[in-house]
Amino acid sequence: MSNSKAQISGAKIVVIGGGTGSFVVLSGLKNYARDITALVNMADDGGSTGQLRDEMGVLPPGDMRQCLVALSCSPRLRELFDYRFDEGSLAGHAFGNLFLTALEKMTGCFAAAVDLAEEVLRVDGKVLPITLDAVTLCVDDGKTLRRGQFLATHEASFSGKRPRVWLEPKPKLNPSAKEAIMAADLVVIAPGNLYGSLAPVLVVPGLGETLLKTQAKCVYICNLVTKPGQTDGFKIHDFAAEIERLAGGEFLDYVIYNVHQPSKKLLKEYATSGELPVHINAVALRRAHYKTKGAELLADEIWQNTNKKDPIAARRTFIRHDPDAVARAIMKIYFS
Amino acid sequence: MSNSKAQISGAKIVVIGGGTGSFVVLSGLKNYARDITALVNMADDGGSTGQLRDEMGVLPPGDMRQCLVALSCSPRLRELFDYRFDEGSLAGHAFGNLFLTALEKMTGCFAAAVDLAEEVLRVDGKVLPITLDAVTLCVDDGKTLRRGQFLATHEASFSGKRPRVWLEPKPKLNPSAKEAIMAADLVVIAPGNLYGSLAPVLVVPGLGETLLKTQAKCVYICNLVTKPGQTDGFKIHDFAAEIERLAGGEFLDYVIYNVHQPSKKLLKEYATSGELPVHINAVALRRAHYKTKGAELLADEIWQNTNKKDPIAARRTFIRHDPDAVARAIMKIYFS
Repeated sequence: MSNSKAQISGAKIVVIGGGTGSFVVLSGLKNYARDITALVNMADDGGSTGQLRDEMGVLPPGDMRQCLVALSCSPRLRELFDYRFDEGSLAGHAFGNLFLTALEKMTGCFAAAVDLAEEVLRVDGKVLPITLDAVTLCVDDGKTLRRGQFLATHEASFSGKRPRVWLEPKPKLNPSAKEAIMAADLVVIAPGNLYGSLAPVLVVPGLGETLLKTQAKCVYICNLVTKPGQTDGFKIHDFAAEIERLAGGEFLDYVIYNVHQPSKKLLKEYATSGELPVHINAVALRRAHYKTKGAELLADEIWQNTNKKDPIAARRTFIRHDPDAVARAIMKIYFS
Repeated sequence: MSNSKAQISGAKIVVIGGGTGSFVVLSGLKNYARDITALVNMADDGGSTGQLRDEMGVLPPGDMRQCLVALSCSPRLRELFDYRFDEGSLAGHAFGNLFLTALEKMTGCFAAAVDLAEEVLRVDGKVLPITLDAVTLCVDDGKTLRRGQFLATHEASFSGKRPRVWLEPKPKLNPSAKEAIMAADLVVIAPGNLYGSLAPVLVVPGLGETLLKTQAKCVYICNLVTKPGQTDGFKIHDFAAEIERLAGGEFLDYVIYNVHQPSKKLLKEYATSGELPVHINAVALRRAHYKTKGAELLADEIWQNTNKKDPIAARRTFIRHDPDAVARAIMKIYFS
């Protein structure tokens, strides 16, 4: 995502999210800002990450890995960290997950593991777990209580209900994460699976309060597609409302959404995955307490899944934001 | 092994061997020289390394890892590379082995993998596989033909016979290894298991010829103990003679050996492991074509094995050379 015209600003930016959506936002933003902090979901429990949590009792490395890779200055090390073994007893493990796991076991401290990983990967910026506690995501739609992010993300169908979401045991907000938000010029909520990836960050007690307190402009990059059984029929303002409900406060200053019509080829992919483009309700957006910015944010290419051994990666959406378009939309707000 | 009095020389030194012995020599020498090249055994097939070779078809990472770690300038990364998982499906694997394996699978090239590992570990010097071919060690004592380094090292008993040793398929000497030897001031044969660790390097076709041709002084650091069933009763000159027989040429200029009497505690450890101190035949050494240097080379501490999950590490000797004492003995020859 190199952009020869990109000018590095002095902006202090915090990006909040899971793995995939934060990866896109961070990959774009790093060409425009150096002082970037990613605050990362720590409830991941599927695939390679879930196996390492189960077998070794470590904190989940997967989403951290994606954020570290996004902010790394070394193309070869980026490639290595995302390399996934496809043979033998290591099949399915991303190398970066093993790296973070070995470091955590060696140092006995996840934060120390991430610090050293930042050094090795030559990361511009900072990646912080939203909490240092080992947590399980709980999602209750009034009928069924589901425990675990994998279940909540991939198996849960809420039948139109807005579920209650929390973490067990009740975690503490990472104090460094709080400091970063308070010191930021911009806070960006990355796109991502609403209940599976964003909620586990947003419901950490104290986060919503901090987002209300900070002088930073709070920006949400809205999802491109709905998720069957969870956000069917959601429009831009529905996503924004859920973001604020989950964190507990009307902290959004801006919502950025895509206005680029997908190609027929992309629409066909939508159909096969059961995901549908998020529509705009112009009246609702005009009435909202936040400002809105429509922009052409869609990546032209269809993302190809090559991680066939990882059941989570295999289910990720084909539709992606264009990192540079997203970054430019964010930076316009910083300079406005 | 920091030595505040150490003075960095301009010596070009090549160290030839397996993992453990080379580790000791390199750890000591790096305080006295910057231009060090380790040429490493590529026939390892036991433990974590053997499993990775079997499952993934990669070249053996174990001995390379130990040499990279010895020459690394980063204490934390050294510790990480040697970290061994002890739980779940990764149990027994050294992290550095997984690192080299991931890099080789990613790049399709072991040499490229080692280059990147050197960069990450901030290695002062160079680590080169003695050959880039996948080889199997073969040892035939006239009665039994054994294939595989693990078998040859740990299971073979030669009943006093000097076995024939070769590699299959016939490998090519790594051209960079040849260049390094030709350009060196000193070539050091590290101590190590004679048939299991040193022979797989020494019998690579072309190595003996190169050692005869080079202007470098060739120095052998003799083993401290004999190995039951393989080198029983061997004296210093017997080890030196086998080194030259295996490589095929009288290339040794110096043999350095230990004259420090082990403590009672160490002698007790000898007894339990079935290994005995190597004795000196002064007459034979005086008649030898090489010069000899006796020195106090024994490490005071008993090395504790903490890698209980690795069947190879679990069998390694308790008796070790002192890295700084070995390095000083080598540097005396350079300055003589």
